[in-house]
Amino acid sequence: MKLMRVGPLGSETPLLGIARPDGGDDWFEASSVTATYDRRFFAEDGLARVAAAHAEGALPAAEVTPGMRIGAPVVDPQALLCIGMNYAAHAAESGAEPPAQPVLFFKTPNTIAGPDDTARIPRRSTTTDWEVELGIVIGQRCSYLGDRKEAAAAIAGYVLADDLSERNFQMHESGGQWSKGKCAPGFSPLGPWFVSADALDPSDLTIRSWVNGEIRQDSNTRDMIFGVDEIVHHLSQYLVLEPGDVILTGTPEGVALSGRFDYLRAGDVVEVEIAGLGRQRHEFVDA
Amino acid sequence: MKLMRVGPLGSETPLLGIARPDGGDDWFEASSVTATYDRRFFAEDGLARVAAAHAEGALPAAEVTPGMRIGAPVVDPQALLCIGMNYAAHAAESGAEPPAQPVLFFKTPNTIAGPDDTARIPRRSTTTDWEVELGIVIGQRCSYLGDRKEAAAAIAGYVLADDLSERNFQMHESGGQWSKGKCAPGFSPLGPWFVSADALDPSDLTIRSWVNGEIRQDSNTRDMIFGVDEIVHHLSQYLVLEPGDVILTGTPEGVALSGRFDYLRAGDVVEVEIAGLGRQRHEFVDA
Repeated sequence: MKLMRVGPLGSETPLLGIARPDGGDDWFEASSVTATYDRRFFAEDGLARVAAAHAEGALPAAEVTPGMRIGAPVVDPQALLCIGMNYAAHAAESGAEPPAQPVLFFKTPNTIAGPDDTARIPRRSTTTDWEVELGIVIGQRCSYLGDRKEAAAAIAGYVLADDLSERNFQMHESGGQWSKGKCAPGFSPLGPWFVSADALDPSDLTIRSWVNGEIRQDSNTRDMIFGVDEIVHHLSQYLVLEPGDVILTGTPEGVALSGRFDYLRAGDVVEVEIAGLGRQRHEFVDA
Repeated sequence: MKLMRVGPLGSETPLLGIARPDGGDDWFEASSVTATYDRRFFAEDGLARVAAAHAEGALPAAEVTPGMRIGAPVVDPQALLCIGMNYAAHAAESGAEPPAQPVLFFKTPNTIAGPDDTARIPRRSTTTDWEVELGIVIGQRCSYLGDRKEAAAAIAGYVLADDLSERNFQMHESGGQWSKGKCAPGFSPLGPWFVSADALDPSDLTIRSWVNGEIRQDSNTRDMIFGVDEIVHHLSQYLVLEPGDVILTGTPEGVALSGRFDYLRAGDVVEVEIAGLGRQRHEFVDA
């Protein structure tokens, strides 16, 4: 089951996607079930309700056509959590040891943008960077989960994300606390779609990014140091995860911070992709 | 003008407080204007609407009596931002240099609790600590503000906060990123009330805390390294502040991290106070 939101910013229509045998999806309009896919949707068993409405034939068919604007598939989380340094080769290129425990930091929820929306290079920025990441969407309130199995049961599904980052702001302008370089407007493109946890194995997915058509990151989620169930279990020992919360799980090697590539400038185009979760394409302009 | 929310958790009544000449407040029930004091209230000019309703005599008198539960006066912010090391003497006791720029980190909004609610020491914790802080509540969307005057105009008002912290989680279990020690359930008591910006000068306020009746922190907001207008102006260069966002502005010296005092245990009682913003009292139990 997929969820997508299409239409102009602020007035997107929620869609439900059902896989066809040929590998494509049939799309249905879910507006009769929910206005959007937010924390309330996930808290109020929205996935089951939208599936039930479809099973009853209550959702009208919708057409998804090229050129339609796509919004972020999930919006307005209570928190947008991020795990840093979760691929060993990326930790190495950043000059850090692989972490012994998941490294947690935050982005503000208002950084969430559509997957193909124009992205903005912050004012004063000379070090804006890309980071393709697998995002977890939480389905149930989680506190002190007992084990990874309980954690797995609390995951609603997955989204593709670009965890855009301004490295000087992140590393040098906040006493070593990273979030100041992670929260510029539009810095968290999500989507194009959400896939429910029953329809995707997150443990073996190709994950890639390109700048102006040249490959930059080319890895697999099997190289994550901490897997998705472990991350959710671990975080629940420190804080309460809420339905609709989004957790970005870290990026593989191949970012500009490595020194191997130029940072982004106006006119550059970033594409990111994870197998099964679609592809984003955002062009950069100056803020 | 003050705002307060009283009643059982989850069904608090929003109140408006109007100062009397004798220094006390007359309280009025604001339920006819708003259900709560959240991001939407501040975004939709709620302060002006509630003041206008009172001026028209449309708000019934309310009684605030000892023993009533008090909820957090503001709830559900898009973000709960925190400035670290903003008093020079506290930076020194933490073993750090005073920062050259505001240090930003985040707490999750679901850590917000009432000022006198029972507080919980997280599981595994041996280093739970108190931090009395002045909280700023944002009144308007802020992005790339031009100067401190624009920043001042964007501040709706102020609240008292205890920025509860688990030092091992903060310092040693997240690769140096602090938030993992800042987000345990109930770790952000706010209140008892909100004061509108026109009614409080935040630049010269006594700020104090006690543990089991013994003074721990005893300072003044004039010792802040970065003042409230400067913080708001500065943050707006990095991210978009939203109406209802809460910014905790750092704590003065006198916390357990200094090594001079014991960390908190079940049974301990913490009180925090800022002149004009009231006093909190929370007793600790094990989570």
